[in-house]
Amino acid sequence: MMFEQLGLIGCGLMGGSFALALKKAGLVKRVVGYSKSPATTERARQLGVIDAQAPSALLAAAGADIVLIAVPVASSEATFQSIRPMVTVQTLIMDVGSTKNDVVQAARRGLQDMVSSFVPAHPIAGKELAGVDNADADLYRGCQVILTPTEVTRADHLQRAAEIWRALGSRVVQMTPQAHDTTFAAVSHLPHLLSFAQMNAVCGQSDGENFLALAGPGFRDATRIAASDPSVWRDILLSNRTEVLAQCQLLRDQLQMFEVAMQSADQAALQALITQASNARAQWRMSAIA
Amino acid sequence: MMFEQLGLIGCGLMGGSFALALKKAGLVKRVVGYSKSPATTERARQLGVIDAQAPSALLAAAGADIVLIAVPVASSEATFQSIRPMVTVQTLIMDVGSTKNDVVQAARRGLQDMVSSFVPAHPIAGKELAGVDNADADLYRGCQVILTPTEVTRADHLQRAAEIWRALGSRVVQMTPQAHDTTFAAVSHLPHLLSFAQMNAVCGQSDGENFLALAGPGFRDATRIAASDPSVWRDILLSNRTEVLAQCQLLRDQLQMFEVAMQSADQAALQALITQASNARAQWRMSAIA
Repeated sequence: MMFEQLGLIGCGLMGGSFALALKKAGLVKRVVGYSKSPATTERARQLGVIDAQAPSALLAAAGADIVLIAVPVASSEATFQSIRPMVTVQTLIMDVGSTKNDVVQAARRGLQDMVSSFVPAHPIAGKELAGVDNADADLYRGCQVILTPTEVTRADHLQRAAEIWRALGSRVVQMTPQAHDTTFAAVSHLPHLLSFAQMNAVCGQSDGENFLALAGPGFRDATRIAASDPSVWRDILLSNRTEVLAQCQLLRDQLQMFEVAMQSADQAALQALITQASNARAQWRMSAIA
Repeated sequence: MMFEQLGLIGCGLMGGSFALALKKAGLVKRVVGYSKSPATTERARQLGVIDAQAPSALLAAAGADIVLIAVPVASSEATFQSIRPMVTVQTLIMDVGSTKNDVVQAARRGLQDMVSSFVPAHPIAGKELAGVDNADADLYRGCQVILTPTEVTRADHLQRAAEIWRALGSRVVQMTPQAHDTTFAAVSHLPHLLSFAQMNAVCGQSDGENFLALAGPGFRDATRIAASDPSVWRDILLSNRTEVLAQCQLLRDQLQMFEVAMQSADQAALQALITQASNARAQWRMSAIA
């Protein structure tokens, strides 16, 4: 499994890291990259993340036998549309988006009959610091990658996609786009939303600055993800809003149980609620490759 | 500033670490300890955290010139009451509780005229693993300690309390019990509550186990504090419930702004909300001693 040319569309942290990882693993001969910002594309070339700069997504895809789309999810459809003329049934196309239902729909509309070449992918990886300067050949080592093929996805492409991610040290999990979006609404999108809301709730108070000055390690960890990129998360929350809103309602129901227990000073009920959470969290271990 | 005898009531992580730190700093000659569980007191002696075991809180306080009460906040009043006969105006009494209004009230009732000897203290420190086995002479190094004296607190005791914590490497901050409780409802108690509610919301779903298996570093950090000790947190949430419920309402208001923006697919509003949170979190740095 060796690719001649990777067409990289979006040379940020995720895309740049994929290019570096593919090179390091000896899986690709050359990388042609395009980013919306010419400065980013130029920087990616300087850093050796890509070998040549393309002036458009279309030209980044030209001649590529593998294309990675690593753009904000809201830009997916326009990107699929623009590369459509260069895509053949032999081209393996993947993305790295954090939502999948909407990306699959965007691919159907944008790629039309070539949608069978698209293997939707979501690597559960990231860093505090975005941008190509933080691209890292080992970003995907030890992480999970979710592949969400549809009924039209070519089996050979799906197979190769799984092999690539495994070769980069990732663990591959397969599920439907819908199951993916429900899962990540629960364990990623809602936690981000709550983290944003917590920061704003503290800062919105007149003494907010004083409160923050005294916050400790618990607050630090609970709100770490609030520092995430606003455009990226605006897109994720909007594109998966049905599932996120449903998870938000479940959270509100749970909050209410705590509130009722506190209001009625019900020690036993409160202890039971906390014990359930504490046991579940103490038993949980993040999946990782040994 | 050298103490003859520390009476340690509650030989867990917080109390045990204080005893070890005081010894390491050469600030105390001997430590007499008492815990509700005789096994804990025995273990504390085996570990050298205390030098002698007392069969009661009263006898742990007997002959002590400094008393540290490190019991669950709900047990504060009973503890103050039981040591009252051994307390003089010369005895410096401190606690390490995470709420202060209720502890101050408990001290008024329990210590009566000796309440002037009590300096309410809350060191912002802790560990995942509780218990005397995890006691650590350096637990308080580099952390903040909030002292919340009242109008009856003796100035000389307050002064000595501040000196002790500084000698242990902590940064001392002084505020009213009420300001303390509002602050920590916002930056500690509500984050814990949200973390508990998040765990329960995920686990309460039929696919909860599958969701958890795919959760990544964002979830790990956002829910880390959900593994906290249930009895300790039941007490904290109950004893500070007025403030916690008020903070919870502010959080609900913020959540609703996000929900409305998602429901109406209002990109600009959502981006503004996230940007506010992201900037605030990116600029925030946890206070630490240089």
